[in-house]
Amino acid sequence: MGEFCIGIDLGGTFIKVALLDAALTVRARRQVETPAECGAEGVIEAMAGAAEELLHHRAASSGRVLGVGIGSPGPLDLDAGVVIGMPNIPGFQNVPLRDRLAERLSLPAVLENDANAAALGEYRAGSGQGLRHMVLLTLGTGVGSGIVIDGRLVHGAHGMGAEIGHLIVEPGGEPCGCGQRGCLERYASATYLADYARRLIEQEGRPSSLRELLATGGEITSKDVAEARRAGDALAVEVWDRAVYHLAVGCVSICRVLDPEMIVLGGGLAKAGEELLGPLRAHFERLHWKLAEPKTTLALASLGNDAGVIGAGCVAWEHFGRQH
Amino acid sequence: MGEFCIGIDLGGTFIKVALLDAALTVRARRQVETPAECGAEGVIEAMAGAAEELLHHRAASSGRVLGVGIGSPGPLDLDAGVVIGMPNIPGFQNVPLRDRLAERLSLPAVLENDANAAALGEYRAGSGQGLRHMVLLTLGTGVGSGIVIDGRLVHGAHGMGAEIGHLIVEPGGEPCGCGQRGCLERYASATYLADYARRLIEQEGRPSSLRELLATGGEITSKDVAEARRAGDALAVEVWDRAVYHLAVGCVSICRVLDPEMIVLGGGLAKAGEELLGPLRAHFERLHWKLAEPKTTLALASLGNDAGVIGAGCVAWEHFGRQH
Repeated sequence: MGEFCIGIDLGGTFIKVALLDAALTVRARRQVETPAECGAEGVIEAMAGAAEELLHHRAASSGRVLGVGIGSPGPLDLDAGVVIGMPNIPGFQNVPLRDRLAERLSLPAVLENDANAAALGEYRAGSGQGLRHMVLLTLGTGVGSGIVIDGRLVHGAHGMGAEIGHLIVEPGGEPCGCGQRGCLERYASATYLADYARRLIEQEGRPSSLRELLATGGEITSKDVAEARRAGDALAVEVWDRAVYHLAVGCVSICRVLDPEMIVLGGGLAKAGEELLGPLRAHFERLHWKLAEPKTTLALASLGNDAGVIGAGCVAWEHFGRQH
Repeated sequence: MGEFCIGIDLGGTFIKVALLDAALTVRARRQVETPAECGAEGVIEAMAGAAEELLHHRAASSGRVLGVGIGSPGPLDLDAGVVIGMPNIPGFQNVPLRDRLAERLSLPAVLENDANAAALGEYRAGSGQGLRHMVLLTLGTGVGSGIVIDGRLVHGAHGMGAEIGHLIVEPGGEPCGCGQRGCLERYASATYLADYARRLIEQEGRPSSLRELLATGGEITSKDVAEARRAGDALAVEVWDRAVYHLAVGCVSICRVLDPEMIVLGGGLAKAGEELLGPLRAHFERLHWKLAEPKTTLALASLGNDAGVIGAGCVAWEHFGRQH
């Protein structure tokens, strides 16, 4: 008779749930669309419904489910298990998500920031397996991050730690939505990388093969920039290099503060694989101090879009599992 | 019958030793000059001699001494207890300092980086008492640092963590001895602040009341800059503000990564007290994100030059004390 935990990843588009055994193997999973219309109640009901399906799965029903881990966008009050607000899901203000789900499922639950959950997922079941210290950077719409030190997530004193997307990598630089200037996120997220290409073309009239995309009413994505770069487009080369350079500055600073074994890169931009890693390593080695060879490995995330839900399950195992 | 630990702070100029009781109160202390001539053997003998005096102190001899904590400059191999090298003390290459002292004193010993020891000192017995997460920045010859998370020092995977003096706060900026550019240390240490004033006067011919000091063959110190600033010297105002601005950039980035309750400032520059803290807080609040009010307190260290030796004693208590 096995023991299991359930992970729930609440995203703006999808709710993912997974049943994890003690080896952190996914034994069953479900995915439903995040209801856009019914406010917090609808979302909680969809989450509970998906989780219940897993409870009725034969593995779970022949064993014992110890608890539920929830990965959620924030800001969150982790101690209270409350979602303070959620930019992408209307009606989610001060919702005691943890206790509502615990009650609904008759299982203990724990709430975690989605980026932290993903970091724990990569650490326990992905690229960071077997390490002591790991940092995850998710290069997507913004730059999300999670820090694991000796197996424990870093939350900070006010739940605002591990926000490496807002590390200042260019003082006085690009204004960020957070109110700072020069945040890593403004240079190295997939969204802002593409946005920078668009600005150079539209506002500065720079020539580029990407201009056509804009002229036909389309939008430039980081994937378009990567492709144009591969084809030798000078603007795309410059835009890509600017992002990678600032990412390297951030990685060096992470090494100086935390000295992790590995910095794991996920999110849309990391889909470029070696096209990201190669230039990144070159900048990183150049910018890195010379007191010792770089010892921190830069690597790609391996769980892809499942890092969040697997990580949420790992959070549950950490809280409700006996050996953990 | 009380229990005690001994802290030893190995500095380039002085060796300090202290006997700490379980409340981390200093019950006895000694200070001797660091022998300059006799290599590692002479230094170890001086350390052991000073520690032995404490062992014969009446408090210690009526109780029990549990162990010795050693705070040392590095680089160090902490696990092996070995000093790999020591820039300021010739003859210190690959010296098993921990085991040599343990054998000499017939007591268990533990080796720690001096900046980390000082951070633990401030955390347990200084400005950081009662907190969970704290960062110490020592603004002296360079910028030393220590990070405490949930009562534990951050060492990193390769013993190179908590080197916040080499956080990049100005990409492409001033070249640092470490081989990087734009390190916090190159802007916010007492030494480099004074050096910047000298460069502006000597190389750029800028007018300043500090010029006289240089003309008479003297050197400019950060204290001179602080005094000239107070007297309204425009160059001193600019030099001070440049250092404080970059220190604020570093403090904001520390908050984004670690979100500590407090960043504690020590070292020569921190002797300026409110003259440092006032402008620093202003820059910090301006540069800080607007998603929430700054919650991390910027404060002065309270143990002064004793942070290292008290911290070394705290390290011993953590390792050899029963409750710790």
